[in-house]
Amino acid sequence: MNSNSEASEERDAWIISIGNELLIGKVVNTNFSWLAEQLTSMGYRVKREITVMDDIQEISWAFREALSSKASLIISTGGLGPTYDDKTSEALAFALGKRWQVDEKALEMVKKKYESAGMEVTEHRIKMAKLPEGAVPLENPAGTAPGIMIKEGETLIIVLPGVPKEMKAIFNGMVEELRSRTGLAVAEAEFSVSGVPESSIAPLIDKIVAQYPSVYVKSHPRGKELGAPLLLIHLSARSRDEKEALSMVKQAEDALISLIKEIGGKVKKE
Amino acid sequence: MNSNSEASEERDAWIISIGNELLIGKVVNTNFSWLAEQLTSMGYRVKREITVMDDIQEISWAFREALSSKASLIISTGGLGPTYDDKTSEALAFALGKRWQVDEKALEMVKKKYESAGMEVTEHRIKMAKLPEGAVPLENPAGTAPGIMIKEGETLIIVLPGVPKEMKAIFNGMVEELRSRTGLAVAEAEFSVSGVPESSIAPLIDKIVAQYPSVYVKSHPRGKELGAPLLLIHLSARSRDEKEALSMVKQAEDALISLIKEIGGKVKKE
Repeated sequence: MNSNSEASEERDAWIISIGNELLIGKVVNTNFSWLAEQLTSMGYRVKREITVMDDIQEISWAFREALSSKASLIISTGGLGPTYDDKTSEALAFALGKRWQVDEKALEMVKKKYESAGMEVTEHRIKMAKLPEGAVPLENPAGTAPGIMIKEGETLIIVLPGVPKEMKAIFNGMVEELRSRTGLAVAEAEFSVSGVPESSIAPLIDKIVAQYPSVYVKSHPRGKELGAPLLLIHLSARSRDEKEALSMVKQAEDALISLIKEIGGKVKKE
Repeated sequence: MNSNSEASEERDAWIISIGNELLIGKVVNTNFSWLAEQLTSMGYRVKREITVMDDIQEISWAFREALSSKASLIISTGGLGPTYDDKTSEALAFALGKRWQVDEKALEMVKKKYESAGMEVTEHRIKMAKLPEGAVPLENPAGTAPGIMIKEGETLIIVLPGVPKEMKAIFNGMVEELRSRTGLAVAEAEFSVSGVPESSIAPLIDKIVAQYPSVYVKSHPRGKELGAPLLLIHLSARSRDEKEALSMVKQAEDALISLIKEIGGKVKKE
């Protein structure tokens, strides 16, 4: 990791994943990787991800941890539906020390969905319109439960449903706002190396990281360390200036490729 | 969630996932879901999963959090290789307040691998043999970096590589030991419901959960709440007695299916 030079410029994001289905291994957390990729490309540094059970204490613990770290952005997924184990909204109210109450705008959103389908607004459906005091409901174009947005100090909290299509639909409506909060450009480069084991590449990466402290370099083993080594090398840099980010990554990539070729590694640009 | 009656019997496990590649969204964390499924079937309750960056402070924070919660089992994946950003072993030593030193048995394992491939044992390769004082290296049948096992009070800590094949190979060697620690049998049942929205099923699940407090019921929306609702319903129970676990799940499943059919839901056993 190479946090020294860029840490102060970066904007930390936390992702909180809620749902027993993740913790019993029934569902693979693709929401997390999708969000992480989106946020990284916007200039956020996704610092931590926490997965917790459908339990008010557990969920509010996760929000409080993220808030106490002064994260710039907290995004949660899951626990927004109508069933007894959908507890995210209530847990967030609890974590913030705020009342949990029916929001008129959210209730309008929920009512409209059910009424246009010719269905009653029952107690379990009204629950989806209960928000922490001061929160704003986010229109859900792909489902019934609204998302939730609330600011706490400098931290923006966005609560999304766990159903991927709904999560993405609400998130996509917030891209402009989220992007404007970082003002950073990210440049990336990637290539693969075959013919030399990761442990032989390691000292070369050390050199490059020392030489280009603002570039982050990561190697991902894809083959066998012994026998048929194949490595994917990923470089990235962030800057307020897009050209500068691109130039830093390019320089570090060229330098690393030269060193790798010197020891007989075969390089292939992805 | 339904933790009341089973919480005291259960054995809590934490999973710690280490690697920037997860936090930038390059890699989907299938290690977590694989481990979670394995541990759940052995009777563990996977309580939390935390993903952290390749950073000593971050990794040791995660281990300390898990230790302070008195987890029965902590399993980490990632950060065991030879590169500069493989820091799990050192961070664990730091978290435990123990020395980080070359372990003779681990060094033998690493040496054997490289020497049989006709390669030198360099400084970066020796790093893979450094363990926290008092830890035991775990043979890696699919790669070079040994896993690590250490007990801290009542907590068993197992450190695995991030490469899925290596992670699974080391884990599979520990199944007997891990299973014997819980002594619990888990019974599960699953069926799908179409034709009624999740918000109409919610009050029925509430009833069943109140009636069968030791059975955990979870609904997963798969279709559209309005229009073409499709729900997957998953029930599970744990007991020291396998027959009892099976019988509890069966009773709750039958009762829930009856209620769902009464309101016109179509049930299909998976």
